[in-house]
Amino acid sequence: MSKSILIKDTYILNPLSPSKVEVFKSSILIEKGVIAGIGDYDYADIVIDGKGKVTLPAFVNCHTHIPMTLFRGVVEGLETMDWLKVVWRIEENLTSNDIYWGALLGCIEQALTGIGVFIDMYFMEDIVAKAATDVGLNIVVSEGIIDINDPSRGEEKIKQTVKYARELPLKYNGKVKVMFAPHSLYGTHRRTLETIAQLSKEFGLKVHIHVAESLRELDFVRRNYGTTPIRALDRLGLLNERTVCAHSFYVDEGEIDLIGRRKASVAHAPVVIMKHGLKEAPVVEYIEKGVLVGLATDGPGSNNNLDFLEEMKVAALLYSYESKNPQKLTVQTVIWMATKAGYDITGFKGGLVREGYPATLTILNFRKPHLTPLHNIPSHIVYAAKGEDVDTLIVNGELIVEKGKLRKVDVEKAMDKVNELYRDLLGRSGFKPRLNGAPVEVKCKQTYM
Amino acid sequence: MSKSILIKDTYILNPLSPSKVEVFKSSILIEKGVIAGIGDYDYADIVIDGKGKVTLPAFVNCHTHIPMTLFRGVVEGLETMDWLKVVWRIEENLTSNDIYWGALLGCIEQALTGIGVFIDMYFMEDIVAKAATDVGLNIVVSEGIIDINDPSRGEEKIKQTVKYARELPLKYNGKVKVMFAPHSLYGTHRRTLETIAQLSKEFGLKVHIHVAESLRELDFVRRNYGTTPIRALDRLGLLNERTVCAHSFYVDEGEIDLIGRRKASVAHAPVVIMKHGLKEAPVVEYIEKGVLVGLATDGPGSNNNLDFLEEMKVAALLYSYESKNPQKLTVQTVIWMATKAGYDITGFKGGLVREGYPATLTILNFRKPHLTPLHNIPSHIVYAAKGEDVDTLIVNGELIVEKGKLRKVDVEKAMDKVNELYRDLLGRSGFKPRLNGAPVEVKCKQTYM
Repeated sequence: MSKSILIKDTYILNPLSPSKVEVFKSSILIEKGVIAGIGDYDYADIVIDGKGKVTLPAFVNCHTHIPMTLFRGVVEGLETMDWLKVVWRIEENLTSNDIYWGALLGCIEQALTGIGVFIDMYFMEDIVAKAATDVGLNIVVSEGIIDINDPSRGEEKIKQTVKYARELPLKYNGKVKVMFAPHSLYGTHRRTLETIAQLSKEFGLKVHIHVAESLRELDFVRRNYGTTPIRALDRLGLLNERTVCAHSFYVDEGEIDLIGRRKASVAHAPVVIMKHGLKEAPVVEYIEKGVLVGLATDGPGSNNNLDFLEEMKVAALLYSYESKNPQKLTVQTVIWMATKAGYDITGFKGGLVREGYPATLTILNFRKPHLTPLHNIPSHIVYAAKGEDVDTLIVNGELIVEKGKLRKVDVEKAMDKVNELYRDLLGRSGFKPRLNGAPVEVKCKQTYM
Repeated sequence: MSKSILIKDTYILNPLSPSKVEVFKSSILIEKGVIAGIGDYDYADIVIDGKGKVTLPAFVNCHTHIPMTLFRGVVEGLETMDWLKVVWRIEENLTSNDIYWGALLGCIEQALTGIGVFIDMYFMEDIVAKAATDVGLNIVVSEGIIDINDPSRGEEKIKQTVKYARELPLKYNGKVKVMFAPHSLYGTHRRTLETIAQLSKEFGLKVHIHVAESLRELDFVRRNYGTTPIRALDRLGLLNERTVCAHSFYVDEGEIDLIGRRKASVAHAPVVIMKHGLKEAPVVEYIEKGVLVGLATDGPGSNNNLDFLEEMKVAALLYSYESKNPQKLTVQTVIWMATKAGYDITGFKGGLVREGYPATLTILNFRKPHLTPLHNIPSHIVYAAKGEDVDTLIVNGELIVEKGKLRKVDVEKAMDKVNELYRDLLGRSGFKPRLNGAPVEVKCKQTYM
């Protein structure tokens, strides 16, 4: 941690605003986890040759369920709610061991694709925090609260979140932050949501919630709250500068405006929108209202990989396709979403390669056939680069990925463990894994209604 | 070429039909460029460890303009026709040297992402054929014919295509095939199209044409042919089993049916559809009518990379998004489009890992964090795998890519040459390359109207 690092002669990219990036050539000196200077340096404990490479803030994945690497490819081609039913059945059988190894594998994959910080929502988030910090990533944990039929479960989870908030940031030396995570308006009891609204204000804790993501949700909220999801959230006192809305694509103009006025944020996951046949988010419209829009992979159960470069490309493609206007969502905006906006949403300082900022950086190797000729670096990042181009990941001045390899964890072991745990987990859930398709239900073992 | 190859203990994937793939474990013996057997073999000149790997037919890229690696990132965010204007201006200045190195880099990129065969449409296609075979790929060349204002130019290009058809397949020992390539109904003169229809029948040469790809085209065809593009093609005698229609998404139900009855094929390029804000093709509807639908990256000027795994994922995502039904375009169909359909469109035998078939195979390394846990191989290929997972590419029994590295060409040199030629080409065209955006027009040097 205390070793100094010099990234020598690199292209530096800074997302200055949603519409502007700067690119210039220089060297970056890192000392005590922080960018000590940009300029003409010659010496450090570790020197990284930056020639033909582009250094930018590490990516921020604003919404995922990282232990769900265990669910990669488990179900394909189902409508969101049907998909959830299968997943929930398997989730009932998850152990803390499954969670740890699933999360570790997911963090490995995130690190390899240049993600330095992520917001997670799942169960046993203290274990997820351990996995993330074992890999070396910064994490926002948010313990998912699903208690629609039993608010007492919600009370328990709220206590757990408050406990996490007291303990985890200290335990992990600032690498872990905590948010409340009521799963959704349809999954979390109204009383629980009201309590969270109050505690969020009291403790200054942010709230991370799925909202406006399905037609069934719209229907549920209309029946139970008499309005639309965003407006319901607002009435509950849950729409403000501490709110991170995941997805939020089923919104009308008034709601876009409301999110902007309340200074809430949005985590946008375009691959999953497409895969499940949902609806594009009004990304540009949000940004025009001053909304922080971060980019997200969502969980590896639904995406099915965590390649952030792919996510950036799909973000640009989807908006152009939906709006029929290839000029509206620019590469500059996509890069801002993937970096600066993400830091501001998480509360981790970062998002600029600038003196005094934490050294949380991704270095892309641009000496690749698909990134040649070398010019128009912002366009190449969004439209041509891929996860494999991540050469180096530095988080808080610590080298996490070096020449495309993880430094602190045994990747082979993690893959073996997940393969083994997956088979076992499926067996316990009454499913049988297959090479040539989604797992088959084993009728005789069925325990789920 | 004559060395035998054994792929030992691999998962084998065969696209049996648009709706069915088989996956099983075995070994593959390759002799004299052909799959000599599937089964329990122990010896060959070269043994590839297939453990944790998946072997399937090499991908077929059904429509590209491969020398346009020189145009990667040159213009972003423009509407198709405006984009073309900038590109055309630069194209006026292309030399055969530019074409060769641009094509070589593009073929390198294709090989690295598992493409063994591709259909190209550009100028100086004999040079493109040389680049493709230098890398080791099979190619269908088709010399683009744009002569809307001067049909005499078309006559010349037709002669050139006929000459290519006589010479190139022999010269390159069957690794090169030839098609006619009238650019489009709006770019090619009616008289030229009529001549091509006749010669295509006479020589049995296939015809590769952009059709039904823009609203401006629809308007042009309505004014000049009094009907829609597909129907105009049919009236010209150009819609039959020898026709490869590139894009073809602006079609009505009658036209889908017509393409099916005429047994023409379609090359589908979903990334470019999205990027330019165009219209999804009725992929499933085509396949239901018996149409061969191949997958394509289109040119690296508009995509901007040639990652075929990315193209497969976007194909699935886009159809699900547009149809709002994630079950309609299955992973099985996408794999069939990327492989078997492509071979049948090109006329190269292939598309199955089966005795007697040419050994044109891609081997994916599944021992990766993002492909773990190992199960549901078809889903992992379409939704989780990436170009970097291509471990081996074999074309006609020849090892082209080994452990992710090209064998026959100097990749470093190709990148250097393209960087150098690109700057020079832009200068000659009156543009100035920039690190932080598309090239800037240099007003004083402007030579274009």
